[in-house]
Amino acid sequence: MKSKLLTIAAICCVSVSQAQDSLMFRKISDEVMLHSTCYENLRVLCKTVGHRLSGTPAAAKAVKWGEQAMKDAGADKVWLQPVNVPRWHRGKESLELKLGKEYKSVPVLSLGNSQGTDGKPLEAAVVMVYSFDEYKTLPEKEVKGKIVFFNYRFRQDFVNSFEGYSDAVMYRWNSPNVAARRGAAGVIIRSMSTGMDDYPHTGSMHYDDSVKKLPEMAIGNLTADALEAACKKGSVLARMTSECHMKEGLAPSFNVIGEIKGTENPERIITVGGHLDSWDAGEGAHDDGAGCVQSIEVIRAFKAMGFKPRYTIRAVLFMNEENGNKGGMAYSDSAISKKENHILAIESDAGGFSPRGIGLDMPEAQKNQIRKYAPLFLPYNVYDFEKEEGGVDISPIHNKLKVPAAGLIPDSQRYFDYHHTDNDVFEMVNHRELKLGAVTLAQLIYLVCEHGLD
Amino acid sequence: MKSKLLTIAAICCVSVSQAQDSLMFRKISDEVMLHSTCYENLRVLCKTVGHRLSGTPAAAKAVKWGEQAMKDAGADKVWLQPVNVPRWHRGKESLELKLGKEYKSVPVLSLGNSQGTDGKPLEAAVVMVYSFDEYKTLPEKEVKGKIVFFNYRFRQDFVNSFEGYSDAVMYRWNSPNVAARRGAAGVIIRSMSTGMDDYPHTGSMHYDDSVKKLPEMAIGNLTADALEAACKKGSVLARMTSECHMKEGLAPSFNVIGEIKGTENPERIITVGGHLDSWDAGEGAHDDGAGCVQSIEVIRAFKAMGFKPRYTIRAVLFMNEENGNKGGMAYSDSAISKKENHILAIESDAGGFSPRGIGLDMPEAQKNQIRKYAPLFLPYNVYDFEKEEGGVDISPIHNKLKVPAAGLIPDSQRYFDYHHTDNDVFEMVNHRELKLGAVTLAQLIYLVCEHGLD
Repeated sequence: MKSKLLTIAAICCVSVSQAQDSLMFRKISDEVMLHSTCYENLRVLCKTVGHRLSGTPAAAKAVKWGEQAMKDAGADKVWLQPVNVPRWHRGKESLELKLGKEYKSVPVLSLGNSQGTDGKPLEAAVVMVYSFDEYKTLPEKEVKGKIVFFNYRFRQDFVNSFEGYSDAVMYRWNSPNVAARRGAAGVIIRSMSTGMDDYPHTGSMHYDDSVKKLPEMAIGNLTADALEAACKKGSVLARMTSECHMKEGLAPSFNVIGEIKGTENPERIITVGGHLDSWDAGEGAHDDGAGCVQSIEVIRAFKAMGFKPRYTIRAVLFMNEENGNKGGMAYSDSAISKKENHILAIESDAGGFSPRGIGLDMPEAQKNQIRKYAPLFLPYNVYDFEKEEGGVDISPIHNKLKVPAAGLIPDSQRYFDYHHTDNDVFEMVNHRELKLGAVTLAQLIYLVCEHGLD
Repeated sequence: MKSKLLTIAAICCVSVSQAQDSLMFRKISDEVMLHSTCYENLRVLCKTVGHRLSGTPAAAKAVKWGEQAMKDAGADKVWLQPVNVPRWHRGKESLELKLGKEYKSVPVLSLGNSQGTDGKPLEAAVVMVYSFDEYKTLPEKEVKGKIVFFNYRFRQDFVNSFEGYSDAVMYRWNSPNVAARRGAAGVIIRSMSTGMDDYPHTGSMHYDDSVKKLPEMAIGNLTADALEAACKKGSVLARMTSECHMKEGLAPSFNVIGEIKGTENPERIITVGGHLDSWDAGEGAHDDGAGCVQSIEVIRAFKAMGFKPRYTIRAVLFMNEENGNKGGMAYSDSAISKKENHILAIESDAGGFSPRGIGLDMPEAQKNQIRKYAPLFLPYNVYDFEKEEGGVDISPIHNKLKVPAAGLIPDSQRYFDYHHTDNDVFEMVNHRELKLGAVTLAQLIYLVCEHGLD
């Protein structure tokens, strides 16, 4: 009888607890959907700071903006964490293609971290290949001194566009190394883009130690189509001119951190963050202004609701995700040196789109603890807890301190239309979609505060 | 032993069948994502026809476009089904508000089907109320001869924005009747809008038989905010001028129908459709050009894949969904008179956004037949089979012939930013999201062709 009563009591506790969780989920959603400042915060970041590459004055201005936004959100404590960042400089750049009788200038972006042509024109015939494998079959004399056009198309058949990105991104990251090994002079790539437009997409590349540093430029899909057609017909000349280069040494910058102190276990920390730096195109709205303002919104909403978390909640605007991840490393190094106790780190860096799930990169037992609450998320259109995803900024703390990592999974269809382009601007972010992402983050954090994560 | 073998055989059949279904789902997705013409079809509809209110020359042009698009998609048979439609005419319209010292013109749209001011200015003081209930508490002398501003705000706290629409839409549909009963002279409403902008949203209203036909105009959220602030401060004058009116009698128009003949049971029909007419604002891109081109895409994709459906598949572009539903009724009447055997009708009329589910309006047993296949849809981000939704165009055939109805459920966050506004244009539709909706429709139809729906 006693055990039966205990069972009933336990069932009652569970259902009371679930009802409370459900109520709190609704309160969080209402608070954010009705009173959020995240959309207005994003407008200010995009329109008064704009793009903000690590080490630039704009990035410094973004740090000041973030510090103030954290204070305005009501964080108990706001501070700047020093980070030394690389400084890549774009300068002037142009790509001219001679597809017919005359050279014409086309929209172009040099790839991030790449070394340009010292501002002098590099003119050569274009050799088009569809893949690394095809390139390797060409006789060396056919590629020596040429500009190689790696015409690998972003595959639209992947329903999850991040899979298409993973599939294609080696052509951005590694083409100059592949090309240089056989004597090519420069590289043009088709952008990592789902867009049916002509925006070139920048993004990081790297040079292997042993090879010559070739210039690498991205063109939009329409220009790539035109170049492809011309290459099929006959010989094409290209003239690349760019001043881009990596500056010597590192420059001082910061992660911006805002905190709500935990009531019961303040030494246990939950991190939620996005990255404050962006590429030097557009306004870094989806990538990753969205993640920044959503993380700040978690602080604002909890303070406005009077929710007192058991654990400490930190919103972190990481610096330098795009070309170095120095912010993520600094955060991890600091956690190690201070012997901090981190129980969960969450990142929002997949755009301010309508949320669909939460990626979980943690042991199976912990995944299952979170999955148990999946039904609570369903009314908020969040249903996918199967992907193993965290985020770049939180990867050092995840890898070095084994902190469980989670990543917000928004709808992925539009992301690679805008990613790293002049079109990643505030106007491409929908206010309701952005806010719902913040709702999901706050709901997850609430759950872990209430029920722990062992 | 025999029964055990039969069980094993049955399990093998199920899993072979599931594997075939899964393979076919992938083929459909690849075909649409890589070769669809639906985005280009939408561009042509939006940019060469534009908006297309029932009974206008533009609607007639849209019928010709639809007929040709069905032929281009490879339909076995294409025909036009006569529909007589009402003709509402907007004409010139303006709303001037005297919020300060002078009258200023504001962005405005008269509500569809409403009777204007015969082109003469109607000037009166504005009485603002937040609800019908509040209006009813006002003394009659305070509202007599006045212009009533129904300032009901679209609730942003509903996660599913269609619930917000359902909650608010009575203020569009019925305000003139409520206002007229107590002697008001005209009505202004805050648009049924999630937008943080100043686009007015039109849409249908109706007049009760017994009341005076008051003019009704919608203003965007920003103008509504300004008007609200002014009304709180003191008295405000408004001047409404509009020529809009319903023309006498009905005009001839058409539903556009394209068909793939079934192989085994051609007499059994599956309908998939959207509506071809739109309001006379924007380009009717999401509402409902998207549903039209997705329905045509089902035909194109099946023909291109060489899929030979057991049942007949009909893509239908319905006329006059927006202000009369005469197309849906004509389709149903024809089905009744021809004693057609319809096994399923599916509608896409909730925008060309990333799909999330399929609404099912049919007996529970049939719902469960479809839900059984939910795991097949999950890789395509379609997971919600719980909503009871069909569509307006297919409601007559559903109601009169008890045909099971289904409705595509896309993400709802952006729909009511664009719905019935000048901003519902091609540029607001994302190509991948639009195509994925067509994938979902084709996958559902494939399943029902393969496995039936009893």
